[in-house]
Amino acid sequence: MHIFVDVMGGDFAPKAAIEGAAEALRSMPDLHVTLAGVQEAMAPYMDKLKNVAGRYKVLETPEVISNHDAPVIAIRQKKGAGIVMGMLAVKDGEADGFVSAGSTGAVLAGGMFRLGRIQGIERPALAPLLPNGKGHFLLIDCGANVDCQPEWLSQFGLMGSIYMHQVMGVDDPRVGLVNIGAEAEKGNALVKAAYPIMEKASYHFVGNVEAREITNDQADVIVCDGFSGNLILKFMEGVAGTLMRIIKKELLSDIRGKLGGIIAKPAFRRVAKLMDYSEVGGAPLLGVQGVVVKAHGSSNGHAMACAIRQAALMAQGNVVGLIDKQIQASIPQA
Amino acid sequence: MHIFVDVMGGDFAPKAAIEGAAEALRSMPDLHVTLAGVQEAMAPYMDKLKNVAGRYKVLETPEVISNHDAPVIAIRQKKGAGIVMGMLAVKDGEADGFVSAGSTGAVLAGGMFRLGRIQGIERPALAPLLPNGKGHFLLIDCGANVDCQPEWLSQFGLMGSIYMHQVMGVDDPRVGLVNIGAEAEKGNALVKAAYPIMEKASYHFVGNVEAREITNDQADVIVCDGFSGNLILKFMEGVAGTLMRIIKKELLSDIRGKLGGIIAKPAFRRVAKLMDYSEVGGAPLLGVQGVVVKAHGSSNGHAMACAIRQAALMAQGNVVGLIDKQIQASIPQA
Repeated sequence: MHIFVDVMGGDFAPKAAIEGAAEALRSMPDLHVTLAGVQEAMAPYMDKLKNVAGRYKVLETPEVISNHDAPVIAIRQKKGAGIVMGMLAVKDGEADGFVSAGSTGAVLAGGMFRLGRIQGIERPALAPLLPNGKGHFLLIDCGANVDCQPEWLSQFGLMGSIYMHQVMGVDDPRVGLVNIGAEAEKGNALVKAAYPIMEKASYHFVGNVEAREITNDQADVIVCDGFSGNLILKFMEGVAGTLMRIIKKELLSDIRGKLGGIIAKPAFRRVAKLMDYSEVGGAPLLGVQGVVVKAHGSSNGHAMACAIRQAALMAQGNVVGLIDKQIQASIPQA
Repeated sequence: MHIFVDVMGGDFAPKAAIEGAAEALRSMPDLHVTLAGVQEAMAPYMDKLKNVAGRYKVLETPEVISNHDAPVIAIRQKKGAGIVMGMLAVKDGEADGFVSAGSTGAVLAGGMFRLGRIQGIERPALAPLLPNGKGHFLLIDCGANVDCQPEWLSQFGLMGSIYMHQVMGVDDPRVGLVNIGAEAEKGNALVKAAYPIMEKASYHFVGNVEAREITNDQADVIVCDGFSGNLILKFMEGVAGTLMRIIKKELLSDIRGKLGGIIAKPAFRRVAKLMDYSEVGGAPLLGVQGVVVKAHGSSNGHAMACAIRQAALMAQGNVVGLIDKQIQASIPQA
């Protein structure tokens, strides 16, 4: 198993990716990685890898794609960037998967134009795993496609279902459609048109899921357009952050609160760990012809290790091959 | 000031509305209410009103619209229902405002077809006030219009701005557009088209607000289509509920957590109060020719009192007249 890691992406590059690779290599004995980046920047952190010598190689990248680059143009022009080189390595079969915490737009564009879509997939989608207190659900799409067609949503359901089964080990994953009511006739034009298509799909469609129930373990795969998905993803961070800030402020505002907060600190640490989605890695880009995982821009070393392991599990579980097979089977033969 | 209250709507009807009316009447000496409902159902609770005799009247309604009725048909056919009678009382000037915790669809349909839109307003919108820890923001639209045109979003901004100024006393309210990025060129087709229209509007447009920042006091009025708004409203309840449930579970899972939780209980009570949006009343239906407030279906007596006071403040602040005036001023004269 060989994962190509773009070490120059993300807020803590290249440190986080190098530490993450070291952690992933220690935990998976059959893993190999390519660390693609600017060696001068990487040098101070390379001693992290001393216990895993022989299982990584370093690839010098003469160019870097930043969040300020226009994604499609950067993917076309910066052929020496880690994102482009990684996508090509996956395409050529040199690597089994690609991981980056860099520009989301560039990872999407690289996946679309350097790797290419799986035949029959209308649009690849970005699908983070999010915590619901009991376990995790896959949110698909969370921003790759802001304006969607009904058929795309149904394909998101198929891809999400395969991912949750193969990588997360969920038996017959429940696929739900984000809507403003539980009844089939509810919603905007998009979800009203998507519902009957999803009802006929081969996966286990459980119908509409109201936003109130998204974090209440109603489905393993939560399907929506990329605009709504991005709202959900970012709003979840926002509300949880605001609520934790209010709780902290109120605990600190009197003696009883301060004392109670100190005594209950281990419980609050467990809550923070449960809500921390870096634990499960990054967001797979599903629907392209290879394993691509986009790690959160603010990933630390541990989060990067999780994203690398996740890419390895996706490759091991043959997620791309199964999506390919099932999408071909779902297309009516001429 | 005279507010017409539909006492038969909501999960705790008619008790909540009668208790709420009693509380509102006690707190506002110049308030009068009409309590419209089925007298037999109301009888057990009428003693709540013994201290405010002379300032309320009871109106028998031979019909009730429930959540199971198709809204538009019910509004057309059930002329003896409180929602229909209330809308007509506002239209005829017999009442200064209408409050109901009943079917959202029926309140919307009643507002549209019995009261009618303000001339020049494309679509009325439902706009709850939500907590952000520091104060409140108005979310508009939260479900009246699931598929929107760009111009409607701009009108939502205008109506929301007038409401926040006149009722909540916010000076020059900041109006933000919900989007998946801060830059003007981000988003789906709808928000990309709405942005330049809102930039030219007469209110204080502060640009895009990312979902992560919605609860972070970035704007006083948060504008979006009704599908996204309903997602935001319901997801906020869902995430906050899930997080509080996880915190409670973790606190109860060991001795330190239990002890800390008991000691810090007053702080947790303050948090719950800060996050409780029933404190600020219901959601005004903005853009119709009269004051209409939709209270939350699960409103208790205190929440109903807040909604009744809110309707009185909307009437006092001449929100409907000002929307009318400013929308006429914004329409180019032929």
